[in-house]
Amino acid sequence: MPYEFRVTRRVEFNETDLAGIVHFSNFYRYMETVEQAFLRSLGHSVVMRQYDPPLGFPRVHASCDFRRPLHFEDLVELHLLVKEKRPRSLSYQIRFHRVEPDPLSDLAVGILTVVCVRKHADGTFEATPLPAGLADQIETAPAGLLAVPR
Amino acid sequence: MPYEFRVTRRVEFNETDLAGIVHFSNFYRYMETVEQAFLRSLGHSVVMRQYDPPLGFPRVHASCDFRRPLHFEDLVELHLLVKEKRPRSLSYQIRFHRVEPDPLSDLAVGILTVVCVRKHADGTFEATPLPAGLADQIETAPAGLLAVPR
Amino acid sequence: MPYEFRVTRRVEFNETDLAGIVHFSNFYRYMETVEQAFLRSLGHSVVMRQYDPPLGFPRVHASCDFRRPLHFEDLVELHLLVKEKRPRSLSYQIRFHRVEPDPLSDLAVGILTVVCVRKHADGTFEATPLPAGLADQIETAPAGLLAVPR
Amino acid sequence: MPYEFRVTRRVEFNETDLAGIVHFSNFYRYMETVEQAFLRSLGHSVVMRQYDPPLGFPRVHASCDFRRPLHFEDLVELHLLVKEKRPRSLSYQIRFHRVEPDPLSDLAVGILTVVCVRKHADGTFEATPLPAGLADQIETAPAGLLAVPR
Repeated sequence: MPYEFRVTRRVEFNETDLAGIVHFSNFYRYMETVEQAFLRSLGHSVVMRQYDPPLGFPRVHASCDFRRPLHFEDLVELHLLVKEKRPRSLSYQIRFHRVEPDPLSDLAVGILTVVCVRKHADGTFEATPLPAGLADQIETAPAGLLAVPR
Repeated sequence: MPYEFRVTRRVEFNETDLAGIVHFSNFYRYMETVEQAFLRSLGHSVVMRQYDPPLGFPRVHASCDFRRPLHFEDLVELHLLVKEKRPRSLSYQIRFHRVEPDPLSDLAVGILTVVCVRKHADGTFEATPLPAGLADQIETAPAGLLAVPR
Repeated sequence: MPYEFRVTRRVEFNETDLAGIVHFSNFYRYMETVEQAFLRSLGHSVVMRQYDPPLGFPRVHASCDFRRPLHFEDLVELHLLVKEKRPRSLSYQIRFHRVEPDPLSDLAVGILTVVCVRKHADGTFEATPLPAGLADQIETAPAGLLAVPR
Repeated sequence: MPYEFRVTRRVEFNETDLAGIVHFSNFYRYMETVEQAFLRSLGHSVVMRQYDPPLGFPRVHASCDFRRPLHFEDLVELHLLVKEKRPRSLSYQIRFHRVEPDPLSDLAVGILTVVCVRKHADGTFEATPLPAGLADQIETAPAGLLAVPR
């Protein structure tokens, strides 16, 4: 069963800041890029309108350690690993590897935790179990893979 | 009746890019900042959920001429003028004036045109007249004020 | 000689707004995505540090007409055409075509005009001719291609 | 000596996403808003070009726990506390309190850790002690204030 996924992405001009590097807030957007590509690769979307009420996955925690910067036009690999699968939530480890111009692993390492919720018509959310069609498809990555070298 | 509005805003780090200036896409966000503050000043919101179906104001056109850049921590005045009021749409002129560190008028000049729509439950939009409570409150600015000096 | 370029891109969650559609400011970012991919396809970058002083391409004008919205996970083709090549500036037409879920041409059409500048050490810019290595590689698109059907 | 700072900010349309709430990546931008306003309140900037080489404060860690969402036009107070002052780094706790429409404390709580670096002309960074003019002005907040109620 899948427990990891990778996509690459080239850093865009609008993602940089005056320090000449990718603004740190964009690393959190990149986390979402790979999370959502992972779900799509399994035939799902982070927006599940086919349920009534619809399901969604609000973020309850996100963190990132920034070791080295990314620059304009760098090619970066976003590497997602399933860190924890619970009945109502998923936690991902997301590792940032530079592919071009010169390879560098784990220049940043993040955690993203999302909770499955039912979205009521009045706008409120309520935690609910992950849909079986998703939970049955994924598993937690082996601990050895989740250990990030210094 | 009101035909103009002004807000000031300090440039944030995340709004700059590697050229050391505010990324041009953020000028369009600033346009929205002053548009929505203008509506709020009149007791309205750009999201009108009190109607059934709700009204909204999707953008149908936006343009901007960039004459001089904005830098980190500059204080900028966003100056909105009502350029045109039509039955179903509004067009604003938005002028960017630097207030600090040294004043500079019209460093950028934009146009924002929005259409009033009814938002149906299936996600489609349909143009509809501006609500009277809004249309009756605003008027087009005098032509002389809309002429931007070179 | 090249006068057009196309890239595709899938709409990301963070690019949407509460109206459920791509926020209009992101269309300007998408314009940059295809402009910069176009330059890369020709062996160039929008950041030309190999010159002394370095060259850059600040935006002096950008506009967009929004006809239909883009939604989360839509696949969009960004289609760039060279609209005008002048000694010191380039103007692009950028057309947005939905590829998935169902094709729709020209749901938005933009213009982006950039000026070639020398970037001095004190942060000021000065307009300068396009480098020959770039100007000689591109040409203006035929007028027929630049006519956008209603 | 100061160990906390507060600014308020109204949620903008472009900061929301299709779930109708502020996109989580923007909480990290809000953290920067209050950090930089805090430095400005002390007469400093996060960009210290008066030193040679210039000093900067790249982010080495940021995390956030999201308990309740923010919505369009909510007024939010960004409340910064100095969590840790080390010779070469600063760690802030940033708490998000809703002020309008109805008050709610600690709807999100973040941590932001920055390192003081010298920025060399070749683009590399090197950790360096906080400038005395800044370090002498601030102190760590009392532990009791840093304890966030559940």
